[in-house]
Amino acid sequence: MKFNIALLAGDGIGPEVVNEAVKVSDAIAKKFNHEITWTPALTGACAIDAVGVPYPDETHEVCMAADAVLFGAIGHPKYDNDPSAPVRPEQGLLLMRKKLGLFANVRPTFTFPSLIDNSPLKRERIEGTDLVFLRELTGGIYFGEKGRKDGGETAFDNCVYTRAEVQRLAKKGFELAMTRSKKLCCVDKANVLETSRLWRETVQAMEKDYPEVTVSYEFVDAVAMRLVQWPNSYDVLITENLFGDILTDEASVISGSMGLMPSASVGEHTSLYEPIHGSYPQATGLNIANPLATVLSAAMMFEDAFGLKDEAEAIRAVVNKSLEQGIVTEDLAGKGAKAYSTSEVGDWLVANL
Amino acid sequence: MKFNIALLAGDGIGPEVVNEAVKVSDAIAKKFNHEITWTPALTGACAIDAVGVPYPDETHEVCMAADAVLFGAIGHPKYDNDPSAPVRPEQGLLLMRKKLGLFANVRPTFTFPSLIDNSPLKRERIEGTDLVFLRELTGGIYFGEKGRKDGGETAFDNCVYTRAEVQRLAKKGFELAMTRSKKLCCVDKANVLETSRLWRETVQAMEKDYPEVTVSYEFVDAVAMRLVQWPNSYDVLITENLFGDILTDEASVISGSMGLMPSASVGEHTSLYEPIHGSYPQATGLNIANPLATVLSAAMMFEDAFGLKDEAEAIRAVVNKSLEQGIVTEDLAGKGAKAYSTSEVGDWLVANL
Ligand SMILES: CC(C)[C@H](C(=O)O)[C@@H](O)C(=O)O
Ligand SMILES: CC(C)[C@H](C(=O)O)[C@@H](O)C(=O)O
Repeated sequence: MKFNIALLAGDGIGPEVVNEAVKVSDAIAKKFNHEITWTPALTGACAIDAVGVPYPDETHEVCMAADAVLFGAIGHPKYDNDPSAPVRPEQGLLLMRKKLGLFANVRPTFTFPSLIDNSPLKRERIEGTDLVFLRELTGGIYFGEKGRKDGGETAFDNCVYTRAEVQRLAKKGFELAMTRSKKLCCVDKANVLETSRLWRETVQAMEKDYPEVTVSYEFVDAVAMRLVQWPNSYDVLITENLFGDILTDEASVISGSMGLMPSASVGEHTSLYEPIHGSYPQATGLNIANPLATVLSAAMMFEDAFGLKDEAEAIRAVVNKSLEQGIVTEDLAGKGAKAYSTSEVGDWLVANL
Repeated sequence: MKFNIALLAGDGIGPEVVNEAVKVSDAIAKKFNHEITWTPALTGACAIDAVGVPYPDETHEVCMAADAVLFGAIGHPKYDNDPSAPVRPEQGLLLMRKKLGLFANVRPTFTFPSLIDNSPLKRERIEGTDLVFLRELTGGIYFGEKGRKDGGETAFDNCVYTRAEVQRLAKKGFELAMTRSKKLCCVDKANVLETSRLWRETVQAMEKDYPEVTVSYEFVDAVAMRLVQWPNSYDVLITENLFGDILTDEASVISGSMGLMPSASVGEHTSLYEPIHGSYPQATGLNIANPLATVLSAAMMFEDAFGLKDEAEAIRAVVNKSLEQGIVTEDLAGKGAKAYSTSEVGDWLVANL
């Protein structure tokens, strides 16, 4: 098969980790007889520096023309202390999600047996944790009308959802649950919010189409607790944009392998794959960043965007092997153990595929 | 001194735990020569059953006339699976907060050395944790306009904040920080929300009035992570209503002493003290519920509402003693150890004050 992949490396360590994912993807392509064309494009702070906006039209065209997008990370400290700066990297992220129609953010949280003791949680609480959040990504309070009144003294943000938006996301949730343990949790705040009541009634109405799936409805505050108490009691969770932002980040800490977690954002036109970690500016250019989350994001891309399960499994297998053999960057290297560089880890993966 | 306290026992185990807090409060009053008059009033599901609404006008009058309110818990399973029922216990809670002007919810999270191993988090992560959330409680998306459009196909919830609302809450935060380690964290989502940008700029403008306080600004998703990773890196946190709902519940799990955590809701007219746990319907009437969170809420009342620090310390000391000596209900009794009943724990506290 032939693929055209848009390569949005972004800022900070983005280019370094993406580079290793490209090396591994190319090696897999060669092994399985595929051909990948990578088309780089600018996004984030580096795009602002180069052309004044964080998600340029040319980048959008590259993404629309691609079979999938591989994304690094965006963000630069010069924007950190001023969230009301007129142009900011995050705006590019939101514009990109909206324009590409990436309505579902898929965030798995799972444990690596060899890393389980890195977790702040006790081993017996997290063993077996393997859950996936589907976060709605193009609606809700992120994209509703917002602004000021009363000469700036009053601010507002409107949260809006349509039934169709909920159905679209929930359908993915039911389908995903069918391929896993057939357990779906709808996270909302239906005791307070009208949008949550729309979510709940919409999901309830869809239950009859998936008679095998057991659906639970839980309030977001209760889930924020239970995620830390008994993460392995969850399987597939669906939720709206803002709740998803908070809960997926909370969930990412659970497994102790935050630096390894991949994610996908899927939509109508294309899909995008990225590590959940940020641009880690302090490490930029030092060749020390952990590339494994990006490599595992590429594995998700092979499986979900291209339907190539064997290729994805091969990548996951070699990542597991690198963890077991301690071929890891400094964030994962045990006390006294050798820490490999970003590119050394990538080279090792390619050599051991 | 003479106090008039409104007693809102509520539903489920509410009456049982409140009863022990009354016993302990009366014993403390006697010891320190105060006189308490308790005025019971209905709220929650039991108020709906009795008079059709969850926060009757008579109850409101009792609260307004009181020096403080002691609250148990509300909620009944018959309302659990239908968050759009026309009359619900939670509506009473929201109406009460609004009508009493309880704009600041004070939620401490601290560890009890003897219970630290109950936490899902590792001991070394939580030792020394002693943080307080101030959650804004009468504004934001909870109380903004909400409804449906397009024949029910679109739902909306509006989040609104005024500068004055933010100032009022932040002032409490700065003042509290001054009595503690002078560290304040403002939790927002200023990279996305206009209300958050108002929060941030308002708090920033107040910094000059509290030059000794070090203020940090963190995004809600980052705090959801760091709370689990390094809870003891926080001290005083201020945040808006919905973020506070989620984060205070998340934080309550950290210390491993969730069943012991008290809270206060303070406002212009009066203040209200309640355990953070719910109405625990399965345990209703069994005399097994843990009364300590309510007893510790009464301690907060003595200290914060009446300015009686010695009385509060005496209550806390006897609670600590009961924990150390294992005079605890079944939720805290170790394997094979005797579990005391709700009223036995209360009797023991009174006898050992
Ligand atoms: C950077 C920010 C706008 C973004 C979000 O809130 O969606 C980030 O936190 C994320 O989760 O991808
Ligand atoms: C019951 C519910 C309306 C309430 C809230 O969301 O404020 C509760 O979760 C709380 O935190 O007191």
